[in-house]
Amino acid sequence: MTDEEFAREQAVYGGLTESLRRLGEVSLRTTVDQDTVLEAQRQIEEITARLSAEMIPANFGVVVTTSGHVRGYGNAVVGLRNPIAPPLKIVQDREKGGASSEFFLNALYEGPPGKVHGGVLALVLDQIFGEAAAAGGTPGMTGTLTLRYRKPTALGALTAEAWVDSAEGIKTVVKGWVKDADGETTVEAEGLFILPRWAREQLAASGEPPPQYE
Amino acid sequence: MTDEEFAREQAVYGGLTESLRRLGEVSLRTTVDQDTVLEAQRQIEEITARLSAEMIPANFGVVVTTSGHVRGYGNAVVGLRNPIAPPLKIVQDREKGGASSEFFLNALYEGPPGKVHGGVLALVLDQIFGEAAAAGGTPGMTGTLTLRYRKPTALGALTAEAWVDSAEGIKTVVKGWVKDADGETTVEAEGLFILPRWAREQLAASGEPPPQYE
Repeated sequence: MTDEEFAREQAVYGGLTESLRRLGEVSLRTTVDQDTVLEAQRQIEEITARLSAEMIPANFGVVVTTSGHVRGYGNAVVGLRNPIAPPLKIVQDREKGGASSEFFLNALYEGPPGKVHGGVLALVLDQIFGEAAAAGGTPGMTGTLTLRYRKPTALGALTAEAWVDSAEGIKTVVKGWVKDADGETTVEAEGLFILPRWAREQLAASGEPPPQYE
Repeated sequence: MTDEEFAREQAVYGGLTESLRRLGEVSLRTTVDQDTVLEAQRQIEEITARLSAEMIPANFGVVVTTSGHVRGYGNAVVGLRNPIAPPLKIVQDREKGGASSEFFLNALYEGPPGKVHGGVLALVLDQIFGEAAAAGGTPGMTGTLTLRYRKPTALGALTAEAWVDSAEGIKTVVKGWVKDADGETTVEAEGLFILPRWAREQLAASGEPPPQYE
């Protein structure tokens, strides 16, 4: 696949997924009559039947383009083709060894009434922390993650930031936070990221830098 | 709304959401041609337009039936009407003060290829932990949550369990784990749950037990 074909594929699948995200939120909030809901369900099942005519196996994994970039199409937080992903656009800062994101969480991410589900904030931070570790040149998988919830987080516009606090050998400590629209810190977190042996061996064999989400 | 009307509403909305979950997974995995994808997107937008004709405001909150039960319709983990929720069916054990769930995570919950996103496991455990604290008679909101990832968790059938380890005043310590289909523990976690002042005042005023998800 050429870069041009890849861009086209991203536009087509990205558009489908974006439309599905809107349908997901609207289906949660709709109060139309039950006949309209039943008719919508029937049409959704028709679309599902057509799209399921040809599918990859049970999971998605990553796609590598000819330019060598890696796209986590299926990732539950950032995946272009994953309708449960908000999706987050995460900016990696390789100079500082950090990552940050400005994002919006709608009713689909609710826990207590009007508030973001605490576990959703853990999900978002886990992804940003992993990208911060990668941006710092010491990628890894989550070993431990500790979250301190300072106050409930209102649904809406949020920011999050993470940075490599220290790195020693295969272990990287990442710290970070989530702030609400008023700039108040609602969650603080700390994580230990570890590069597993299979990944170390693979990197050593290839001589390549670790993959980065683009 | 009577219990009967509520049951009917649950069936209709639950059906819509279940169909949407299938469409979400299929849209992630489909490899049909781009014209078919574009046509599917067009139809999805038509359905969205019809369902958005009447909607509740930006978030869902909880619904209380005449029987006094509370349903977290919009909850990101267990919500009947939330298409991003797997959804989990969580069994509360009020005698032991715990909660557990058998659940299945498909490609929508992927992080590393073939593996559950670490943050999704945090999301799931946060919900189960909260229900364990409630089942133990000491409900609260998540104060801190610490996750130890023992090994990657394969997508598929999983189990999770949580129990109240100790409770003192408004603070409840909950512990728990996730196991994979082979019965191997992949994540261990510990959380501190705190009943906020506004909730204590509300409970004291009503003389009622705290709400339980049904």
